[in-house]
Amino acid sequence: MPFVNIRITKEGATADQKQLLIAGVTDLLANVLGKNPKTTFVIIDEVDTDNWGIGGDPVTLLRKDKQHSQDS
Amino acid sequence: MPFVNIRITKEGATADQKQLLIAGVTDLLANVLGKNPKTTFVIIDEVDTDNWGIGGDPVTLLRKDKQHSQDS
Amino acid sequence: MPFVNIRITKEGATADQKQLLIAGVTDLLANVLGKNPKTTFVIIDEVDTDNWGIGGDPVTLLRKDKQHSQDS
Amino acid sequence: MPFVNIRITKEGATADQKQLLIAGVTDLLANVLGKNPKTTFVIIDEVDTDNWGIGGDPVTLLRKDKQHSQDS
Amino acid sequence: MPFVNIRITKEGATADQKQLLIAGVTDLLANVLGKNPKTTFVIIDEVDTDNWGIGGDPVTLLRKDKQHSQDS
Amino acid sequence: MPFVNIRITKEGATADQKQLLIAGVTDLLANVLGKNPKTTFVIIDEVDTDNWGIGGDPVTLLRKDKQHSQDS
Repeated sequence: MPFVNIRITKEGATADQKQLLIAGVTDLLANVLGKNPKTTFVIIDEVDTDNWGIGGDPVTLLRKDKQHSQDS
Repeated sequence: MPFVNIRITKEGATADQKQLLIAGVTDLLANVLGKNPKTTFVIIDEVDTDNWGIGGDPVTLLRKDKQHSQDS
Repeated sequence: MPFVNIRITKEGATADQKQLLIAGVTDLLANVLGKNPKTTFVIIDEVDTDNWGIGGDPVTLLRKDKQHSQDS
Repeated sequence: MPFVNIRITKEGATADQKQLLIAGVTDLLANVLGKNPKTTFVIIDEVDTDNWGIGGDPVTLLRKDKQHSQDS
Repeated sequence: MPFVNIRITKEGATADQKQLLIAGVTDLLANVLGKNPKTTFVIIDEVDTDNWGIGGDPVTLLRKDKQHSQDS
Repeated sequence: MPFVNIRITKEGATADQKQLLIAGVTDLLANVLGKNPKTTFVIIDEVDTDNWGIGGDPVTLLRKDKQHSQDS
């Protein structure tokens, strides 16, 4: 009965992509630890880029600076 | 000084229902563990059904499939 | 399918008390929002008093200072 | 590589204030524990006042009652 | 720069299995959303079975009752 | 009434260092947003290096490889 919380920046993930994340994590827990998919919960939180910091700066600023692909 | 985080799908919980959850959890911690209500925090997160998965599928899909009342 | 995370200081909650918390929160969500108990998850985290701060001080210190009953 | 999650009520924090929180927490972890800012993550969650309870009541109600400055 | 928190019951997951979870989730986020592995964080929390409830009962009890394989 | 959760690897942070983190974050929220220290909660989680992954690898492995100071 695992619980997984995935947090990503809110930058346009589609419903299909979110479905792939949910399915993929659920499979991974079944394959690696034998966890039952029926009682595996996955919650995806999409966080505004103003509200996510890395290296002391909000992601909004990093995106402006240079499209920092390495911080995607 | 407990901290409680309740996560539910965003499907129309009213302010009154949320107030009942907050009051109920706070009482429970006072009754069971003698925790002081004044320093009991409760945060309710309402999660989009596209962003919540169970059994490898997003809740959005489960709702469409059959109104799965047992997964409410 | 709610998910509830209860965080308390690690100060001797018994297995029976934890069972009461789990049952109580699960009932509350069923009563207030009609949530299905079978897919209600509750996780209790017990946190060392050195690792929990309130008012700028660790709880360890508050406990020493005066048994601050109001911060239980 | 610390991860910090700051949760506040959604009551108008500006992008600049959020930037100050991100920078301040990142500096704190570098100063106190020598943590590398480049791999320090900070996520700020702004929570609706209906969804945050303290003392058994939603903050929405506390704000109405009396501008409770002590619960800011 | 995703952040993933995986919560499982503390029932003997090995360091190798945890490494597989970390690698698998990191790959998934790279494949589905193009996220950079270098700034992908994964934290696994192992929770005592007394502290995890499902269906209103602690997992400790469920395990005793019948080895409930479907709740693994 | 902010709630802050700081997650760091379990690598010997002392009670004094944790006290500095608690005091520092509480001050920061008072200074930047005028939040009341009395109702500011801080919880520090120390995570085993086997259970924390970055770049697809557990921190345990990164530490062995090269003392990766940049991932401290």
